Amino acid sequence: MASLGDIGLAAAINILSAIGFLLAFAVLRLQPINDRVYFPKWYLKGIRSSPTHSGNLIKKFVNLDCGTYLRFLNWMPAALKMPEPELISHAGLDSAVYIRIYLLGLKIFVPLAFLAFTILVPVNWTGGSLEQIKNLTFSNIDKLSISNVPAGSDRFWAHLVMAYVFTFWTCYILYKEYKIITTMRLHFLATENRRADQFTVLVRNVPPDPDESVSEHVGHFFTVNHHGHYLIHQVVYNANQLAKLVEEKKGLQNWLVYYQNKYTRNPTKRPTVKTKFFGLFGKAVDAIDYYTAEIEQLTTAEAAERERVIGDPKAIMPAAFVSFKSRWGAAVCAQTQQSSNPTLWLTEWAPEPRDVYWSNLAIPFVELTIRRLIMAVALFFLTFFFMIPIAFVQSLANIEGIKKVAPFLRSLIKVKVVKSFIQGFLPGIALKIFLILLPMILMTMSKVEGFTSLSKLERRSASKYYLFILVNVFLGSIITGTAFEQLNSFIHQSASDIPKVIGVSIPMKATFFITYIMVDGWAGIAAEIIRLKPLIVFHLKNTFLVKTDQDREQAMDPGSLGFASSEPRIQLYFLLGLVYSVVTPILLPFIIVFFSFAYVVFRHQIINVYHQQYESGASFWPDVHIRVIIAMIISQLLLMGLMSTKEASQSTPLLLALPVLTIWFHIYCKSRFEPAFVKFPLQDAVVKDTLEKATEPNLDLKAYLQDAYLHPVFHGGEIEQVTLNEEDNNALVPTKRSHRSTPVGSKYGSEVGSEIEF
Amino acid sequence: MASLGDIGLAAAINILSAIGFLLAFAVLRLQPINDRVYFPKWYLKGIRSSPTHSGNLIKKFVNLDCGTYLRFLNWMPAALKMPEPELISHAGLDSAVYIRIYLLGLKIFVPLAFLAFTILVPVNWTGGSLEQIKNLTFSNIDKLSISNVPAGSDRFWAHLVMAYVFTFWTCYILYKEYKIITTMRLHFLATENRRADQFTVLVRNVPPDPDESVSEHVGHFFTVNHHGHYLIHQVVYNANQLAKLVEEKKGLQNWLVYYQNKYTRNPTKRPTVKTKFFGLFGKAVDAIDYYTAEIEQLTTAEAAERERVIGDPKAIMPAAFVSFKSRWGAAVCAQTQQSSNPTLWLTEWAPEPRDVYWSNLAIPFVELTIRRLIMAVALFFLTFFFMIPIAFVQSLANIEGIKKVAPFLRSLIKVKVVKSFIQGFLPGIALKIFLILLPMILMTMSKVEGFTSLSKLERRSASKYYLFILVNVFLGSIITGTAFEQLNSFIHQSASDIPKVIGVSIPMKATFFITYIMVDGWAGIAAEIIRLKPLIVFHLKNTFLVKTDQDREQAMDPGSLGFASSEPRIQLYFLLGLVYSVVTPILLPFIIVFFSFAYVVFRHQIINVYHQQYESGASFWPDVHIRVIIAMIISQLLLMGLMSTKEASQSTPLLLALPVLTIWFHIYCKSRFEPAFVKFPLQDAVVKDTLEKATEPNLDLKAYLQDAYLHPVFHGGEIEQVTLNEEDNNALVPTKRSHRSTPVGSKYGSEVGSEIEF
Repeated sequence: MASLGDIGLAAAINILSAIGFLLAFAVLRLQPINDRVYFPKWYLKGIRSSPTHSGNLIKKFVNLDCGTYLRFLNWMPAALKMPEPELISHAGLDSAVYIRIYLLGLKIFVPLAFLAFTILVPVNWTGGSLEQIKNLTFSNIDKLSISNVPAGSDRFWAHLVMAYVFTFWTCYILYKEYKIITTMRLHFLATENRRADQFTVLVRNVPPDPDESVSEHVGHFFTVNHHGHYLIHQVVYNANQLAKLVEEKKGLQNWLVYYQNKYTRNPTKRPTVKTKFFGLFGKAVDAIDYYTAEIEQLTTAEAAERERVIGDPKAIMPAAFVSFKSRWGAAVCAQTQQSSNPTLWLTEWAPEPRDVYWSNLAIPFVELTIRRLIMAVALFFLTFFFMIPIAFVQSLANIEGIKKVAPFLRSLIKVKVVKSFIQGFLPGIALKIFLILLPMILMTMSKVEGFTSLSKLERRSASKYYLFILVNVFLGSIITGTAFEQLNSFIHQSASDIPKVIGVSIPMKATFFITYIMVDGWAGIAAEIIRLKPLIVFHLKNTFLVKTDQDREQAMDPGSLGFASSEPRIQLYFLLGLVYSVVTPILLPFIIVFFSFAYVVFRHQIINVYHQQYESGASFWPDVHIRVIIAMIISQLLLMGLMSTKEASQSTPLLLALPVLTIWFHIYCKSRFEPAFVKFPLQDAVVKDTLEKATEPNLDLKAYLQDAYLHPVFHGGEIEQVTLNEEDNNALVPTKRSHRSTPVGSKYGSEVGSEIEF
Repeated sequence: MASLGDIGLAAAINILSAIGFLLAFAVLRLQPINDRVYFPKWYLKGIRSSPTHSGNLIKKFVNLDCGTYLRFLNWMPAALKMPEPELISHAGLDSAVYIRIYLLGLKIFVPLAFLAFTILVPVNWTGGSLEQIKNLTFSNIDKLSISNVPAGSDRFWAHLVMAYVFTFWTCYILYKEYKIITTMRLHFLATENRRADQFTVLVRNVPPDPDESVSEHVGHFFTVNHHGHYLIHQVVYNANQLAKLVEEKKGLQNWLVYYQNKYTRNPTKRPTVKTKFFGLFGKAVDAIDYYTAEIEQLTTAEAAERERVIGDPKAIMPAAFVSFKSRWGAAVCAQTQQSSNPTLWLTEWAPEPRDVYWSNLAIPFVELTIRRLIMAVALFFLTFFFMIPIAFVQSLANIEGIKKVAPFLRSLIKVKVVKSFIQGFLPGIALKIFLILLPMILMTMSKVEGFTSLSKLERRSASKYYLFILVNVFLGSIITGTAFEQLNSFIHQSASDIPKVIGVSIPMKATFFITYIMVDGWAGIAAEIIRLKPLIVFHLKNTFLVKTDQDREQAMDPGSLGFASSEPRIQLYFLLGLVYSVVTPILLPFIIVFFSFAYVVFRHQIINVYHQQYESGASFWPDVHIRVIIAMIISQLLLMGLMSTKEASQSTPLLLALPVLTIWFHIYCKSRFEPAFVKFPLQDAVVKDTLEKATEPNLDLKAYLQDAYLHPVFHGGEIEQVTLNEEDNNALVPTKRSHRSTPVGSKYGSEVGSEIEF
């Protein structure tokens, strides 16, 4: 069990490393050569440009003005200065709402910490239960926790009342925040400019038709069933192969540029390259000629593939983007069921074009449910069998464990500083390394599940990651750690005792989580700001590939918030804060430091660095909300488990009402706010439509929407051809109507809608 | 523990009483005087009429044809003869699908019983574990159950495999049935005649407006936001007070008729009545004059109230029935969100007019969620504290319990038949009496929760009742009974051991549930067919109140299926069948007898007796489906609990996959079929609209819908006045448009929709 001294050492290490990162950042960001690494957002916005103006060469790369170094922390107030409306228009609503999560943490935990320190800490400190027990090692931290209150004491009423107060405060803040963010989202949607996705619906699972192509079928179906509203549609091409060729060509072009640059610098010798096995074997040939030839060959292949995709009816997937004449028409189509078979003609709001995940658009319904079952089972195994290595590492990070496994280290361990380091630092860092590997696996799993937009993929991955963190980091650390500490004392206990076991172990694990918060929350956030990987990659690219300003633009990697992995990590802090707020309040200040530091850092990052791939209008907020609710319920259940072992039998049943109220609160919030995040109200659609009609009466919406949902590989290339093809399809509707009215009419139950009047 | 002999006696008693009921039914139903009790449906359909034709007087009341008595069971084949399509058109889809629940039971349990008896019974019987234990009383039934298999035996593999087979078979049948019923529902909806609810949407939570009445506000809102589709709307009057007056008047009229009849039969003496305290005290006055005067007074009061309701704007509730020009328009409005505040302008499909529960139409959203929380808590207490009386009665029904409580009965108990009777019969009947009281309470709770249609109220009450049966009848009987039997042996055990305790107790409780099935399932169903209460009430009314054929029509009480209380009771049999199918298969034949007997009885009843108040198109099926799924999961968990105590450690973890697969199966079925029960696809709407337009081009839909959703108290009375009022409101829309276009226009974001073109 770590003492206050151990914690102090760990804190010192982490604070020092955080300061180290911040100093490094302060120095690096002031160098003009790193400008594109630390301020890429401004370059992408076109506000900032490369320092190519007059001045000596060194000043272009290194900042020699010493005064700027002294104010090395002044990026912090700068980050806080930008007002929120400006932040939204600068970085988008997603980012602006994302950093509000940190603010939410502060709003919840600052009052909680204040109350806990004025009421619970004195109650615990004077409990005096630990001092009476012999043969028990305990630290001062334990004296601050609920462990110090003797079993059956009346002091537990204080914890009970505080549990209620904390729950109500958290709910109140959550409610207020949900309301604010709903208003922000609705305002954002109402004021945003015309975008293709406002008029467009994604239709999936178009049933095959023996007489018609997918495009004709879609056209007819919506002409009939949304008569007067349907405008145009774009089928989805299976261009995955083509996209691969384009990607390959791009890679070869990079190599060509690299060798051309090399040749320019050293014109005496033409560069050569070996052609086989990654350039290691084979005959050396002239590199520039070789890559030029290769690219030419690929260009031909690409053109052929492009031809095939557009011409081959089998390359058209049974999905389409259907656009309507008004936002009202799109809102209606997205929210209604089209066919009596609910697995066909599935409609949903189209994601914005940047947000579409193209490869997943054509998965049939049954396959989708089977994929999800398999992924659910896989997630289960991933979540529960990933625990084994963590448990192993943590058992090593235990002094006794190390002594057993590696006896030769015994003398080293006896040094006090090393011992403190092992106990305070290693368990946290071991966990951290495991967690870095995970998001990619989870994202792949979400892709297999078949979600159609990047935003949904990120949200789903975040849910998976949250489950993982909950089971492995939170529960895993508590149970496994305790199991090793208590020397197999309850290995043979039944699984049904787990809630109690966890409840009892929680106060003992406080020190572990404090070190974890310092490693992951303090030093980790400080490391985030230094952007080591993008820094290195940018300079490598800048040296070897960049010729023009446009190349330099492409060499920048602004990155993004990475909702899928960063949000669940924040949620761990909510969980820890809520669980320990009643049990061991000493943890709360560490969490508050994390939230405020992270708020400043990420506000700086979204202003200067991150460039979001898409804008979903804060549609992730319901996920954030429910996870805080889950954390509350877990904290309440664990408190009940803990209290029931403390013989506080009068007070424990009173805790039962808390989860009930919390769940009710969640249901209320869900029905009150969530529709604003998934549906688009008709009233708002009508308002926007009317306004647009009044201000732009001659808008050619058809032209505007024509190519909005083209697969990205077609953009910039042979658009004309595709457009032509689209128009062909549309032309089929009126022509078909004349000579095929009976069969088509009977299939859709009308004479192709021409006589329907709504 | 009841032996096979006890069970035999109980079976004999129940079979005899069932036969008694059937004989009584056979005699009673053949008497012409009871014709309206046993065949009311045919009278309501107008196919059958009173036996007033020639013939002697006695024959009018008593059937003297002895031949008909001999064939006393021939109603059974008659009930089975009617083919299903005819049954649907005769009794409605709700009833036809309802009796398919019994058929579903047969489809599931007949193969299960066959497999269990060929495989599991021999495995159990030869287990021989019970015979080895000394000092243990056990019956032959226990020898047929899993209790007879020794702990750690390899024989448990048979149970494991069978658990999988049973689960897959049940899922297969459930899937097939869901598919059939979805098809039936879609076919039913597609072929059904024009009904007002197809065009109408119920709008609730209309926000108050300072400038406009509710009616104007609704009219404007839908004119703007469903331009070109909106047709007409009817506001909802708060006519609860008026309905009360009408009801009161009807009661007084009944008394008037009663005294008039009395006077007609005995014209020498005018009947008198005392006026105070239910006719017990006060001055005796002439009854006919008194009631005539009272009725006149009420008529005046009613007219005044009617005037007030129609005139007073406060009597108009913030809800309305909005009708559209086409089914498409209604389908769109019902499925979309109207306002950016998701708690305002809530739209849903209007229930059909008969189905509307008028008093609940005006509850605000926040109040609604609070009411639901309170009712959820109330349901919890009702469910868990209702157990105390049942436990008390069951402890009495135990031989030892009776000896203790009533020592004077000791000699009586020693008689073997009495003892068997107490053990085999009393616990069941005690439970049954409790259950009769319950549905009314639960229905009241559902009404407080604020559901707006009778069908939903019934479905919600059924859910509550199911929870109650699950906790009290099923779990309560298992735990409490065992607790008393095992003499406080595990009263001090922790709550977390409950799953195991239940699993272990299940085989011991088989005999109790067998007697319960016989009392509730066999004799209870037979008692259902005799319709004792309607029989008595009808004859009382017939004697005292009936003067004309129309009166006789009103005296009939055909009743209805009573989904709220009868469906959860069927579900108990599914639960018992699934839980015991692996553990004690001997229970299955009893359940099969119940399902087949009940199927015949209820098929007879829905053909000849029940008259459903509304037709919901089998919208209750998802509830039935999920409850069978819940029963499956419970049976799987209990089997796991039971197996884990049997030291079958290799096989228990393999059972874990079962609940996972079952839940996935449910999710699949839900997404595949449930939308057909809650949404109306646009394609089908277009088909019906087009067809109607072609066949009835001159239909005046406005006139058809004008009074469809009038509060029932207005029907037949002053409709003209209300209609006029409606037209006034509609007229306001165009007139207002001219002189108030700017403020109204800005509120709805357009110039009252006059310039919007979709």
